[in-house]
Order: sequence, then structure tokens, then C-alpha cells
Amino acid sequence: MVDRSFEFDVATSVREVSIVDGAHHFEARVHDGWDIAGNANGGYLLALVGRAISAVTSRPDCVTITAHYLAPCPAGPARVVVTPVRSGRRFATVTASLFRVDEDGKMKEVLRALATVGDLATDPGGPSAMQRSMPDISPFDECILMSGTSVNDFAHLHGRLATRGEPADIAFRSGSPSGRAMMRGWFDFADGRSVDSNALLLASDAFPPAVFNLSLPMGWVPTVELTVHVRAVPAPGPVACFFTSRFLQNGLLEEDGEMWDTKGVLVAQSRQLALAPRG
Amino acid sequence: MVDRSFEFDVATSVREVSIVDGAHHFEARVHDGWDIAGNANGGYLLALVGRAISAVTSRPDCVTITAHYLAPCPAGPARVVVTPVRSGRRFATVTASLFRVDEDGKMKEVLRALATVGDLATDPGGPSAMQRSMPDISPFDECILMSGTSVNDFAHLHGRLATRGEPADIAFRSGSPSGRAMMRGWFDFADGRSVDSNALLLASDAFPPAVFNLSLPMGWVPTVELTVHVRAVPAPGPVACFFTSRFLQNGLLEEDGEMWDTKGVLVAQSRQLALAPRG
Repeated sequence: MVDRSFEFDVATSVREVSIVDGAHHFEARVHDGWDIAGNANGGYLLALVGRAISAVTSRPDCVTITAHYLAPCPAGPARVVVTPVRSGRRFATVTASLFRVDEDGKMKEVLRALATVGDLATDPGGPSAMQRSMPDISPFDECILMSGTSVNDFAHLHGRLATRGEPADIAFRSGSPSGRAMMRGWFDFADGRSVDSNALLLASDAFPPAVFNLSLPMGWVPTVELTVHVRAVPAPGPVACFFTSRFLQNGLLEEDGEMWDTKGVLVAQSRQLALAPRG
Repeated sequence: MVDRSFEFDVATSVREVSIVDGAHHFEARVHDGWDIAGNANGGYLLALVGRAISAVTSRPDCVTITAHYLAPCPAGPARVVVTPVRSGRRFATVTASLFRVDEDGKMKEVLRALATVGDLATDPGGPSAMQRSMPDISPFDECILMSGTSVNDFAHLHGRLATRGEPADIAFRSGSPSGRAMMRGWFDFADGRSVDSNALLLASDAFPPAVFNLSLPMGWVPTVELTVHVRAVPAPGPVACFFTSRFLQNGLLEEDGEMWDTKGVLVAQSRQLALAPRG
């Protein structure tokens, strides 16, 4: 059951209204305050869609989900449509679309997703052979709260979060980029909600772009595509996040993410393809 | 125009037969000899779908394509269905499905894809800031041809390719795994066809799994999901390929790929989520 007292649960709530030709239609709302300068954060939108996917499949974990972003999305009424593709013992595969609904009822698709979902807590599992452990990051208390600073007052998303940034990686905000395309921090919610599997979809896109630490023009870095692999259910506490971009080439860049829980377990990987700011 | 004298072009040819509710239907054939032990290689199937996507969109490059693999696919008649989602100036987004067609005409979906495509040769581009260059690999002539060896006689795919493996990385075939989850090599076609944008989709899945270099049970490593970002049109010649797996955890692993052309340009990145062999 959803605890309505947590902002993230309210902002990602969906209500099934019909099934048309096998497609499950949900009423939803893109909520205020999960945006960067008026456009809803891509990770938040993915988490909203993830809620509907879990409702249709009765499986909590997006083992792999890919979203292609089609248009910016301001706050307002929305619709999510989830269409089952295949349902197996271990995994189910679905497609999903998020539409914003204009005042005249016209729908515009803002995100198309493809996901294979499962239940990692009961997954049969298999061998492990980790080639490395969690990268270096300063302890939570030594990282810097991202919200409540005037340098960040367009990133309203951070008002909902208790996310902290590695000091060296967020010094770009005061004009001192590190020179390394890296962004590290701890993801957490401002209202104490625990970081579950669905929240990892938000975490994967909730930090400033790693390329802000290069000496490039600053500006919007629109996501073309975002893939998240949820690899384990997070233990309680904040989630350590590591983002790097290695290849900014001809205006296109990848950003790779790793998310680790407080027990040192890899809980998610992400990769997005994005467009570089043109200044 | 397709040059019918090259095997890859024949094996990925598609013929549009109808448009139903905006979905473009293509007749195709999953050809013999592009398989591992009887099941068509996932990269080959992705390239087959890529051909149909380019036909519908008139755009040659899968800037980002994700496939979810739903069932194994032996050789035989097939159908590809491509449905446009959005068409913009720079990019177009589509979904696509590949079905195998049984003797009684029954269709079974084997792959669902989501792609955003463009034309990188005429793309407006933008800034570059590469954080590193191509990783180390032995010259083409010092790498070892993967085809024509008895240790590989189930991997029929290699008979179509002139792909070469870094000696240290393919010594697992004679019982000497390197201990590092890395697989390097050069991708090329046996019949001299050039490696174009679509062939990169094949290259992304055409090498033995990097985890074969760990001391684990050997066996099939089924791909759950494969994403390829085509980053540039390759220059003539073979393409250097680098695959690594960092995190094999509870039976799930990612494999990350980089592909570089003979001029040292990054032409593609890939990531797949796969299931570890259970021995």
C-alpha cells in the first residue's frame, strides 16, 4: 500500500481507468516541484511510469527499463498507458507511454518506454563475481546538501530531495569545475521516505550532469534516452550515486551511473544518451 | 541500393508488404549461419530490425536502439513490424517487433525494440571533449581469426565474419581464461563487406561474453536487453571492439562495449544485461 504522507508516493500515484485492446490506461498527474526550470525531471517521469508498470505486472523491480524522451513535460494532468508484451515466470516485458493532457483534453506523448520487470527479492539469482566494489565517495555528512542554495534555485527537484553532492564535484556551482566529467553524491528524500527500487529510477537522473565539470558552455543537457538496470533492492538509508561521462563527441554524450546502497551492494546501473549544451 | 553479393545484406534484407494502422509490416528471413548453436545471434537480429527501421524512417543511423529479447529464434521466415512514434528534424523515434513465423503461419514475437534514429553524416553535431581515447588492443594482424577453429564449431556466426580476438582474451577457448572479464578484438566481415552503421548492431553482440574469462561455469549467456548507441559512421576497415563486465551479481551481469574505427573515432557504445550461466 502507498503511504500518502510521502511526497514521492503522491507525485507518482496512478489510477487505472480502463483497459483498451489489452492496454492499461492510468490517470496520473505530473506534479509541481519535481522539475528543472519548469520541465519535469526525466527520472521522476520514469518513476511515474514505473509505478504503472508495477501495477499492471504485479512485479516491483524494473530490472531493465529504457525511456526515449519525446518532448518536455510541464506539470499537469497526464495519462500512462502500459501494454503487456510477454509474461514469463521470472520476468515480464511491457511497453509504456506517458502523455501530458492539455486543457482541451488533447494528449501529447512525452516519453515512450520498454521494460522487463521482475521481483528481485524472490529472483532465483545465480553466481556473483564482482570485478570491483563501490567507488570512493566522502561520507554522507561530509557531502553538501543540494537543496536550499540560491545557486540552484531553478532546480526545484532538489527541494523534494535530501540529496548531497561530493564537495569537489559540485564546486562547479561556484565557478570551480573539477575538470573531470564526474558527479558523485548521496540520493535521499527530504521527507524521510525510504529509497526503494522505483526511487532508483529517479536517482538515475537526479544529479547535475557530470559534464558540468568540464570547461564547456553550461546549459540544458536534454536526455534522448535513459536506461536503468535495477540490480538489487536497496537496504535502508541513502544511496551513493556515481556518474561519469567519458565520450562527449560531436554534441552527443553518454552518462553512466552506478548506485550503491549503504551495505555496499550495487543496486542499479544507468546509462543515458544526451545532447551537449550548445551554450 | 543493397549489394546482393554481400552475405550480411542478403541476411538482413526486408520487403515491405503492408501498412496496417500506421505500422509498417516487412517480410524477412532469419538466415542460416548467423547463429550460435542454432539460435540466431542477438546482434544479427537487431541489425535485421535496424534495416526495416531505416527503410521506414529514411534515416541510416540507430543513434540509440534498445532491444528486449523475448524468445530464442532459429532460422526461418520472419516478420518485422515498425511503428513510428515521433518524427522530428534531427531524430525520429520508432518501436519495432521481430516475429518468427512458424510452418502453420503462427507468429511468435522474439524481440521488441525502441529506437531513436538519425543521420549522423549530416547531424548538426556540437562540442567534443573526449575523456580518453581507444583502449589498448593488438594490431589486427596479431589478433587471432575467430572462425575456422574446431573449438568454436557451434558458433556458426563466426563463419560469416573475419573477426579476430585479442590472443590473451580468447585463450579461454583452450582452457586459459585471463581472469579479467574483458574481451577485445576486431570486427570485420568474411566477404569484405564494409562495416557500416547497421553492422555495428551486429558487432555489439558478436564476441564471446567477457565473463568467459572468469573462472565460472561456461554456458549460454542469454541477453535480456541490449542497447547500442551509434556515435559516428565508421571509416573503412575493421572496427576495434572492447567489452567488459564489471558486475556479475546474483546471476545478472552487464556487458559494456566500445567500438572504434581505424581512424580512432568512437563509432558505438553498447550495454547489455544478461543472465549468467548456471553451469
